[in-house]
Amino acid sequence: MTPPDALIDLLRDIVGPNGLLTGADVHARQTNTIRPQPLQALALVRPASTDEVSRVMAACHAAGVAVVPQGGLTGLVHGADAGPAEIALSLERLGRITAVDAGQRVLEAEAGVILAQAQAAAAAAGLLFPVDLGARGSATLGGMAATNAGGNRVIRYGMMRDNVLGLEAVLADGTVVSSLNHLIKNNSGYDLKQLFIGSEGTLGIITRLVLRLREAPVDRCVGLLALPDFPAVGQVLRRLDRDLDGRLAAFEVMWREFYCLVTTAPALTRPPLPQDHAYYVLVEASGGSPAQTDHFAELLGGLMDDGLIDDATLAQSERESEALWALRDDVAQMGRWGPPVGYDISLRLADTGSYVNAAAADIRSRWPDARIWAFGHLGDNNLHLVVQIAGLDDAARADLDRLVYSPLGGLKGAVSAEHGIGTEKKPWLAISRTAAERALMETLKRMLDPTNILSPGRIFDLSPPPSRAGTP
Amino acid sequence: MTPPDALIDLLRDIVGPNGLLTGADVHARQTNTIRPQPLQALALVRPASTDEVSRVMAACHAAGVAVVPQGGLTGLVHGADAGPAEIALSLERLGRITAVDAGQRVLEAEAGVILAQAQAAAAAAGLLFPVDLGARGSATLGGMAATNAGGNRVIRYGMMRDNVLGLEAVLADGTVVSSLNHLIKNNSGYDLKQLFIGSEGTLGIITRLVLRLREAPVDRCVGLLALPDFPAVGQVLRRLDRDLDGRLAAFEVMWREFYCLVTTAPALTRPPLPQDHAYYVLVEASGGSPAQTDHFAELLGGLMDDGLIDDATLAQSERESEALWALRDDVAQMGRWGPPVGYDISLRLADTGSYVNAAAADIRSRWPDARIWAFGHLGDNNLHLVVQIAGLDDAARADLDRLVYSPLGGLKGAVSAEHGIGTEKKPWLAISRTAAERALMETLKRMLDPTNILSPGRIFDLSPPPSRAGTP
Repeated sequence: MTPPDALIDLLRDIVGPNGLLTGADVHARQTNTIRPQPLQALALVRPASTDEVSRVMAACHAAGVAVVPQGGLTGLVHGADAGPAEIALSLERLGRITAVDAGQRVLEAEAGVILAQAQAAAAAAGLLFPVDLGARGSATLGGMAATNAGGNRVIRYGMMRDNVLGLEAVLADGTVVSSLNHLIKNNSGYDLKQLFIGSEGTLGIITRLVLRLREAPVDRCVGLLALPDFPAVGQVLRRLDRDLDGRLAAFEVMWREFYCLVTTAPALTRPPLPQDHAYYVLVEASGGSPAQTDHFAELLGGLMDDGLIDDATLAQSERESEALWALRDDVAQMGRWGPPVGYDISLRLADTGSYVNAAAADIRSRWPDARIWAFGHLGDNNLHLVVQIAGLDDAARADLDRLVYSPLGGLKGAVSAEHGIGTEKKPWLAISRTAAERALMETLKRMLDPTNILSPGRIFDLSPPPSRAGTP
Repeated sequence: MTPPDALIDLLRDIVGPNGLLTGADVHARQTNTIRPQPLQALALVRPASTDEVSRVMAACHAAGVAVVPQGGLTGLVHGADAGPAEIALSLERLGRITAVDAGQRVLEAEAGVILAQAQAAAAAAGLLFPVDLGARGSATLGGMAATNAGGNRVIRYGMMRDNVLGLEAVLADGTVVSSLNHLIKNNSGYDLKQLFIGSEGTLGIITRLVLRLREAPVDRCVGLLALPDFPAVGQVLRRLDRDLDGRLAAFEVMWREFYCLVTTAPALTRPPLPQDHAYYVLVEASGGSPAQTDHFAELLGGLMDDGLIDDATLAQSERESEALWALRDDVAQMGRWGPPVGYDISLRLADTGSYVNAAAADIRSRWPDARIWAFGHLGDNNLHLVVQIAGLDDAARADLDRLVYSPLGGLKGAVSAEHGIGTEKKPWLAISRTAAERALMETLKRMLDPTNILSPGRIFDLSPPPSRAGTP
């Protein structure tokens, strides 16, 4: 028996015959449009409890074999793709919601629970789990915490980091650290959950979580605004944020090219506002009483009087609200000319308009036929830039990445706002992080995973270890 | 020259003669009621730049001498008290606000800036820095971040952790890690600031911060409610949180004994509501327009109709709002019989009423004349329990601590909600944190401060180092 075979036997003993897949059974697993290639892995292990995750990790740690935790595989930066010599560890059998406490407004669940299931359990208790994103039917809570997922309501409720009160994680050597805090305030020592949230599975495997729930808003007001120029975007954001006083739930900006794309056939939506404005903003506020709707309409009237918006339409029903959101969410239109390249970056709002203009000009000077769409959660500084270029090979893709990412250094922007680094953005991490920051990240990684078996090579590659000279 | 003298000369060279105090000059520094004893330290060093902090740390690291960072010395758990063999490192000369960016809604400042100065700078830009607490005139931003300070508005805006976007820290060996992020969303690698926020100066010295600012609410509604029983507290919280929809800014509960104390002479306030109710809640909502005030009054009427509140009064002016807050903030009344012992703990809301009853009974069974007051930010699970017992010696104080803290273990409560652990709560940390959590805290500490010179012995004592047997 070769060592990998012996390890696989050992893992099968831990998780049972149904808990481990190899070979064709791995390749045959469902994939999706983001990841069209068949899944790879030395084996796919499906532990059914924290204890099994712990024993799997202890075995892999002893064998020196790499492990890649997998949630719903909805990530966009290939952080959870396993290679042929790596063990894929799926949390899919850790799928129980173990408690919903309506008085304390918390939900406790295993890491493999799907976002939509958690949202439904919260709703059944008359509450809201506010983190929401398009992949709600597949994304798992564990994966969302590991990548600090964002989505559409960050402006009001924050990212996963702001909505996870506690968690349990298994370290690279199998040690279980259970930190299942249910309290809003807890300054009793280091806040250990922060290590695992957003570290993309490189420092530990999240196995259970405590989510903070909120009171569910009774209704909503949704509007679409047309703006004359980019400075107006910042002014409208501040005015609405101030005047809606806690009720602003989404502020989604669309550049004209994106708006025209999703409101022109074959897209299903017809333009709710004419297509000749420079910027469009989808705004959502909680609360839909007549008084609140009137107030919202008044605010828009005031913005129009002040020349900050050129035109606006307010949804008159939940059906119209959904139609406005459907327009914003019709990102599939960007795939009509072949697979586009999507960027998820973050900049200061004041820099974002000129950045998009300059990046588009740079891209078009090299690829005159490039299609370029810009939109994003600009209330949180998060810009999605999507580029479609026919016949883009790997070298040209790297050039495109450079055109998009390089200007961010001078602007103190971030190469990832919400998707994470994974392997896709690893070459560009240094644009957003200093050498001292990267060195500290490496120190953390070496501390928690000294043999580098947990998702190795994701986010960053480890530098050669420091010289042992001088070590006592 | 003994080594300490040589170190002091070296430090004086770094910070200049005005930057270093020793002996009587240290003892003569201003103290306060929390810390009546004269300040101690081998020397008090006052670096004026990050570079000076870095050089001070490198020198102390080389000399193996402990360093205790000090902000405004308003902490309540003695985490920043230095001993006679420790260097006290005050951030007081790092006092500049370096940028206020109203478009991006951020403020960048050095760590020694006083909270009130930061609040004023935000207000001058038409914005709000929402973290607020009684010590606003002395507490520094660096100390508040190092201790993850909370305060009165956590229910709406969160703690310091939620309001710091980026920071710069100096590690134990003098390494500067600058992570001055200005962006709301940034998933570009590990979120390193989380290491330093709430670690009470044991993992690094915060030298600069980027604070997130918010739109300032135009006005407020403040009310005082009287409740018949503890279950009503949770129901009123949920109803107000839902119906005020983002505008609930404070939910401060007072038990009857506390309310009577602060509304009876010699306290200056007369009771706005009769003193015979079981619980009182000070509620603040943002927004004070006539429509909002009417809505707030309607909500209170609904709560009364449903039997959840027995009585209520609504401030009719900003002056009356301030008077209601003054009552809640008149904690000095508890000092009239000698220094009281204050506890800052956290429990699930549903457990809090019965916990207070049981703890009070336990305390009175040993000390029949004990004075006990309970109040707190119960919207965030944060209970302040204050006990006054005549002639309490150290051994009896330890017994009292045990009575207060021990029940928290079974209730999954926290021995510190917002004040931190420092040295005062160190013996009780294990009530709230498992062995695995404490071991991981120690691993972090050893990684970032291998010679244990940064605030050693605060939060926890390091266990003997693990055996080297088996180390490659």
